[in-house]
Amino acid sequence: MEKLEYFEDYEVGAQRTTTGRTITETDIVFHAGHSGDFFPHHMDAEFAKGTPFGQRIAHGTMTFTIGIGLTATQINPVAFTYGYERLRFPKPVFANDTIRTRVTIKNKALEPKRPGFGKVVEACEVINQRGETVMYCEHVLLVQCRTAEAVA
Amino acid sequence: MEKLEYFEDYEVGAQRTTTGRTITETDIVFHAGHSGDFFPHHMDAEFAKGTPFGQRIAHGTMTFTIGIGLTATQINPVAFTYGYERLRFPKPVFANDTIRTRVTIKNKALEPKRPGFGKVVEACEVINQRGETVMYCEHVLLVQCRTAEAVA
Amino acid sequence: MEKLEYFEDYEVGAQRTTTGRTITETDIVFHAGHSGDFFPHHMDAEFAKGTPFGQRIAHGTMTFTIGIGLTATQINPVAFTYGYERLRFPKPVFANDTIRTRVTIKNKALEPKRPGFGKVVEACEVINQRGETVMYCEHVLLVQCRTAEAVA
Amino acid sequence: MEKLEYFEDYEVGAQRTTTGRTITETDIVFHAGHSGDFFPHHMDAEFAKGTPFGQRIAHGTMTFTIGIGLTATQINPVAFTYGYERLRFPKPVFANDTIRTRVTIKNKALEPKRPGFGKVVEACEVINQRGETVMYCEHVLLVQCRTAEAVA
Amino acid sequence: MEKLEYFEDYEVGAQRTTTGRTITETDIVFHAGHSGDFFPHHMDAEFAKGTPFGQRIAHGTMTFTIGIGLTATQINPVAFTYGYERLRFPKPVFANDTIRTRVTIKNKALEPKRPGFGKVVEACEVINQRGETVMYCEHVLLVQCRTAEAVA
Amino acid sequence: MEKLEYFEDYEVGAQRTTTGRTITETDIVFHAGHSGDFFPHHMDAEFAKGTPFGQRIAHGTMTFTIGIGLTATQINPVAFTYGYERLRFPKPVFANDTIRTRVTIKNKALEPKRPGFGKVVEACEVINQRGETVMYCEHVLLVQCRTAEAVA
Repeated sequence: MEKLEYFEDYEVGAQRTTTGRTITETDIVFHAGHSGDFFPHHMDAEFAKGTPFGQRIAHGTMTFTIGIGLTATQINPVAFTYGYERLRFPKPVFANDTIRTRVTIKNKALEPKRPGFGKVVEACEVINQRGETVMYCEHVLLVQCRTAEAVA
Repeated sequence: MEKLEYFEDYEVGAQRTTTGRTITETDIVFHAGHSGDFFPHHMDAEFAKGTPFGQRIAHGTMTFTIGIGLTATQINPVAFTYGYERLRFPKPVFANDTIRTRVTIKNKALEPKRPGFGKVVEACEVINQRGETVMYCEHVLLVQCRTAEAVA
Repeated sequence: MEKLEYFEDYEVGAQRTTTGRTITETDIVFHAGHSGDFFPHHMDAEFAKGTPFGQRIAHGTMTFTIGIGLTATQINPVAFTYGYERLRFPKPVFANDTIRTRVTIKNKALEPKRPGFGKVVEACEVINQRGETVMYCEHVLLVQCRTAEAVA
Repeated sequence: MEKLEYFEDYEVGAQRTTTGRTITETDIVFHAGHSGDFFPHHMDAEFAKGTPFGQRIAHGTMTFTIGIGLTATQINPVAFTYGYERLRFPKPVFANDTIRTRVTIKNKALEPKRPGFGKVVEACEVINQRGETVMYCEHVLLVQCRTAEAVA
Repeated sequence: MEKLEYFEDYEVGAQRTTTGRTITETDIVFHAGHSGDFFPHHMDAEFAKGTPFGQRIAHGTMTFTIGIGLTATQINPVAFTYGYERLRFPKPVFANDTIRTRVTIKNKALEPKRPGFGKVVEACEVINQRGETVMYCEHVLLVQCRTAEAVA
Repeated sequence: MEKLEYFEDYEVGAQRTTTGRTITETDIVFHAGHSGDFFPHHMDAEFAKGTPFGQRIAHGTMTFTIGIGLTATQINPVAFTYGYERLRFPKPVFANDTIRTRVTIKNKALEPKRPGFGKVVEACEVINQRGETVMYCEHVLLVQCRTAEAVA
């Protein structure tokens, strides 16, 4: 559950892929009720027949929630979320699609404003069962340096 | 519900604020089950006592989901989400906080790659009952131009 | 579970009271997500402070749903819901209130338009832990006559 | 979100129709758990095969909850629910049906018992994708008069 | 709802069968979020294709929860759960299966350690629409003796 | 996520403890709706005041579901649940209690009926923030032997 990784431990290019999860109609209905977004693109099958996709699509906020949620299997007590960049949804997610998230360490750099910390950028790609990328974002972490700890 | 707004109709600086919504312990429990993220920061009150916040905090993905969901009251049939930038969580959200989202048209520009369309950037600030900004992001929209429609 | 009662078996004045159920903040959040009604009277604790009630109130549709749901313990295979009349909400329901439903057979009459059936009116009063009636309605049932069965 | 309409502003015959929402198996399961009504008509597919409908049907309380919920898009701060009359379910709702609600101002009259207020009756018809009315009720509102405000 | 039954009233061999309930994909998704168990056997349709069952299966804890929940229709105020023995899941439960629970009084004996009480063992079999037993367990109850009450 | 452990790898006496999870009123309301068990011990705060506990208690099936769910962090592809024994609830669980599960390998033995497999018994103790055991059970696993694999 818990795995300690200092800034120095992150290797650019390292990659892991999560287990998969099938997105269901249930998830879409849940997410509408959770977010309050009942737009017909997500909730009205009749309306959706007339869209380019021909069927209801998942909310972008849900793909983000579940896509990032899939990565939440290990807690690193010295890493904190700084933010997310470049969140994109290149393809829609439909009920019955199965997604997994591939996390790649994209780059890292010491953070001059926060001595003893560095920024690590994880590229998160959510991929469906057809190999299509349905979401992309960059998760920026602030991670403590091992040396910082020694000094403190 | 539906309100047609072309690229030309968006005014930089225009602002709207949503209704408020109180974040509850229910939302946090629900979000854990929806996302699969049961990290103790969100789910373990005993653990949370030992953190700087002293209590459980909302998931960032939930603040994003509900913060953006609050804006989903009007459908503009000629606008599409291109993506989100600069998603940040400057302060934590706790159960019993009440949030609302302030949307400001930050800038707009024609999109050379997609003739007949422009990009509109909405700055979304999620603000709690103490006036603190708990989330910030920029929602980038692709919006059809009125003139494009005339031509097509 | 199943209890056969013909039109002739219903006695005007007969009364039963259900078990109790505490309405929780969870129920209110659920109901908003289920119904799509996120009005601030139900969802915004800050807004609610400025109302006469001083706090969030349950949706009327929820009091109806749970109040009637409490009565759903016995199935009468020869009775069908015809409709509901005079649905009223004389007092608000708050989170942490405990409600139960008192059902009284108010009147009954043969139904000339449906030979072999009668109409039975159940007065349903939802009562809170202070003895206040928070909901009232009349549930109209179409119930088969025993004699009808003999004839058919 | 908020739209101020005084008693004088309501026009008999005025009509609006909500966006649509597809009722899902998820909604039915959710409603059973919310209401506590697990009757086999809603929850037991094997039992339902032997009924005239041949499949599970939505709870009446759910059709009411969602049908009325669909109308909750605009808040009129001078209107209050007085109650509901003549609630009927002429046809069943099945999973995968898409419903919308048509609201018609049926009649209005000053309320002698509450000077400065009038009663407005909205006929609410819930209609499925085949154009069938699956629910009907009359929503009775108490609405403040504009003149009353001037006087107060 | 409430039915008083003393130790002396339980008859070995007596049997009752609950109403049925169709297990849905919704229940499985809900249970994952409730339990925190997102193992791919329950949540990943692509993974499940490669298992002997060829599809996602219900969590054992869910079959137990719903199977026992189906029996919760009558409250006996003088009986208490002592525990459960021999919980087994001989066959998987899939979405769309309909289950019911058959409860048989298996044996009973006075409880020397708790004068005035006896142990009653209920064999609980959860059976699907094909007549297959998908769960078995023995529910051990501590039940007050009628004579004990007289003495106390 | 996945960790391969053969029968030979299990060490009697080995112990692990899960992360903690705070049980909330939300979980209890969820569980009632999921299981269909709305007994007043779980759902009626007024009734509960008159019980020895003075407040609502969690369902045993929920403590089992969440207690076992907490252990579901690693998948062992060569281990299968055989069943559970001796499930007990020595103390009640209340809303706001925080539980974790301690898993101890209690014993193991080759399974003569299934050559190439052994039975491993995990004692699962669910412990609250006061150090009290609120649930105990023995999880019996069928685990493949390494040597069996070599032979097959």
